Amino acid sequence: MKNKILLAIADGVGDRPVPELNMLTPLSYAKTPTLDLLAKNGSCGIMDLHGAGVPVGTDLGHMILFGYKLSDYPGRGPIEAFGEGISLKAGDVAFRCNFSTVDDNMNVIDRRAGRIREGTQELAKAVSGMSIDGVEVLLKEATEHRAVLVLRGNGLSAAVSDTDPKVEGKPVKPCVPKEETREADYTARLLNKILPEIHHVLKNHPLNIRRQKEGKAPANFLLTRGAGKMPKLEKTMERLHVSGACVAAESTVLGVARLAGLTPLTSPTFTGNIDTDIAGKASMAAKALKDYDFVVLHMKATDLFGHDNNPAGKVRAIERFDQMVEIAMRQIADTIEDNVIVALAADHSTPCERREHSGDPVPVVISGINIRKDRVEAFDEVSCAEGCLCRIKGNDFFNILMDYLEATPKEGN
Amino acid sequence: MKNKILLAIADGVGDRPVPELNMLTPLSYAKTPTLDLLAKNGSCGIMDLHGAGVPVGTDLGHMILFGYKLSDYPGRGPIEAFGEGISLKAGDVAFRCNFSTVDDNMNVIDRRAGRIREGTQELAKAVSGMSIDGVEVLLKEATEHRAVLVLRGNGLSAAVSDTDPKVEGKPVKPCVPKEETREADYTARLLNKILPEIHHVLKNHPLNIRRQKEGKAPANFLLTRGAGKMPKLEKTMERLHVSGACVAAESTVLGVARLAGLTPLTSPTFTGNIDTDIAGKASMAAKALKDYDFVVLHMKATDLFGHDNNPAGKVRAIERFDQMVEIAMRQIADTIEDNVIVALAADHSTPCERREHSGDPVPVVISGINIRKDRVEAFDEVSCAEGCLCRIKGNDFFNILMDYLEATPKEGN
Repeated sequence: MKNKILLAIADGVGDRPVPELNMLTPLSYAKTPTLDLLAKNGSCGIMDLHGAGVPVGTDLGHMILFGYKLSDYPGRGPIEAFGEGISLKAGDVAFRCNFSTVDDNMNVIDRRAGRIREGTQELAKAVSGMSIDGVEVLLKEATEHRAVLVLRGNGLSAAVSDTDPKVEGKPVKPCVPKEETREADYTARLLNKILPEIHHVLKNHPLNIRRQKEGKAPANFLLTRGAGKMPKLEKTMERLHVSGACVAAESTVLGVARLAGLTPLTSPTFTGNIDTDIAGKASMAAKALKDYDFVVLHMKATDLFGHDNNPAGKVRAIERFDQMVEIAMRQIADTIEDNVIVALAADHSTPCERREHSGDPVPVVISGINIRKDRVEAFDEVSCAEGCLCRIKGNDFFNILMDYLEATPKEGN
Repeated sequence: MKNKILLAIADGVGDRPVPELNMLTPLSYAKTPTLDLLAKNGSCGIMDLHGAGVPVGTDLGHMILFGYKLSDYPGRGPIEAFGEGISLKAGDVAFRCNFSTVDDNMNVIDRRAGRIREGTQELAKAVSGMSIDGVEVLLKEATEHRAVLVLRGNGLSAAVSDTDPKVEGKPVKPCVPKEETREADYTARLLNKILPEIHHVLKNHPLNIRRQKEGKAPANFLLTRGAGKMPKLEKTMERLHVSGACVAAESTVLGVARLAGLTPLTSPTFTGNIDTDIAGKASMAAKALKDYDFVVLHMKATDLFGHDNNPAGKVRAIERFDQMVEIAMRQIADTIEDNVIVALAADHSTPCERREHSGDPVPVVISGINIRKDRVEAFDEVSCAEGCLCRIKGNDFFNILMDYLEATPKEGN
């Protein structure tokens, strides 16, 4: 019987003892019958995504879970571009942008152009396709006032500074090279030439003229930051010849999934918060397992409550995660005839007391009829450390999963 | 509440089952209520400083505990120089030296110049500041007959042989290059030129003329060994923006602390042996925690008894270490309002039967109210191996500690 894998990721689920929870972690406090059953029926361990004690971001954490390494990390701009569905080519330089408002002296009046929500697609279209000195300019609107700018051409560098002054009332910062290379120098000069041209186009766009008449801040400038160059990254799913999909709400996770060659699957009912449609997500993942061998099912809310230092909320989110996995497993049992291995993981810890990602390891489980069973009976940070996977790295975890799909290449003969 | 860390290091504490101790290790045999309580209230594990089965020296072991890697190791000369408070510059070549006695034919009569203890500061001053071919010569006296010689100039290499013949009655060995580079060749020739000049200065120094009159061996030569070149090493505490201090007696440990940017704290009552002033050390460490976020509290005696194959002595030293940590913790509870995490570690194992450092892993504990608690209830080599830190490397341990201080940089976003 062929193996398939459902990998359920509880974003930022790892934590530390919390006074409000009788000095238990949210994960050990929460009622998680499904996760515990999986721990009981499989191999457990703890995982450092990159290295022990090294905190990672959600983007890098998921890159590692999907088969990449720290050295593959392209920077924030390209990750955002992938999140917005832009197919980057090797050599492209991508920037995170804000539609913003500047006055005639290039002072920043509003960093978010009155938190513009409508019409940004139209504005982006008016800019996208411009070119300067043979370099192509692509612009794609993102959530609310955000956008992604891509420069496509030869000899570009991502070693250039941000133009966003970060505070209002100050002038736009000129872009300067961050290293002494011809490419960085060229890219900075190029950006300093193209941004005024974009300003010219945006300023005269009918939508902005209308906004001004209505007393709204015109979205007449692009503030750039987080330049990143797209490296030549092979899609891990293609490299290993695995068919994969990722069910998620958050654009960062969906973007990294796309980068790795996992088909992104989402729906407007998936909110990225605790009110997300767990039945819809579970059902979509279970269905995807008919067509794909490796399906990721992601929940964001666990991380958010860590950032908010809300242990009770994190407990609730964990219990919803447990239910989501339970629903998915029930549907899988009804519809899939192959052996579905269920794995549990997280992209990093977000301890409530820290309100930020930490380097504490996360618990992991790999569970299925053909998986070695250790004596661990609960899915939590301490119990799993006693399991037969011991302490592994994110890269190990990915290779182990891929090996159950018989996809990790054999070395030697 | 802000985290601070007290890291208590029992030098060479790791051991093997000992027949005289009912086949227990000294650590499991000793009564250590404080260390056991820490194990009970925290995360336990075992640690390979560099790699499993690889013995390390006290200097490298502490370098790793303070955030460096094997590839950062500069050799014994520079470590000694730091131990003696010499601020080395990148490119300096340092040698460990003995003040010794040679006859007119350059035969070594006494490798330690009658174990000279007094006046070496004067002798060092007479030599220090000489220069040859534009290279500056620095000499600093160390404990008893020992000294540190530093060559400061361009184009020097540490790939040169020792001049110490290691036995008496033989001539001083000429310094030869250990690799075929112009720098090694130049440095060897330089040393062969400067050592006779130093001999000339020392031979005619009033102190040595007086020693000869008194029938004592004159300290008229410098035998060199352990050449090491100072690499460009960033102070780990500066790199991570952590304020740190190190309470110790031994100059090697204090020197490595200085290298890492930890303020060295010591006192003449700290002996580096079992009679060391544990109350004074504990109190100094507790006080330092008011001003520093990371304080190291070191004890040497545990290692010495391993080298002497004295299991009963090692048990006594371990019990003194336990008391020292207990005193420090009591004072911390009375005076510090932040959350103080107490960590336990060692720089290597020194099994009694081996009388030398071994590659056996050492037990580690990280203990505090906000630290994950596993089921381990005792601080010893085997109990800790069942803990939730699992088996980690020295570098991981350092990163984990620094992450509790929120100092380990986050990767990705």
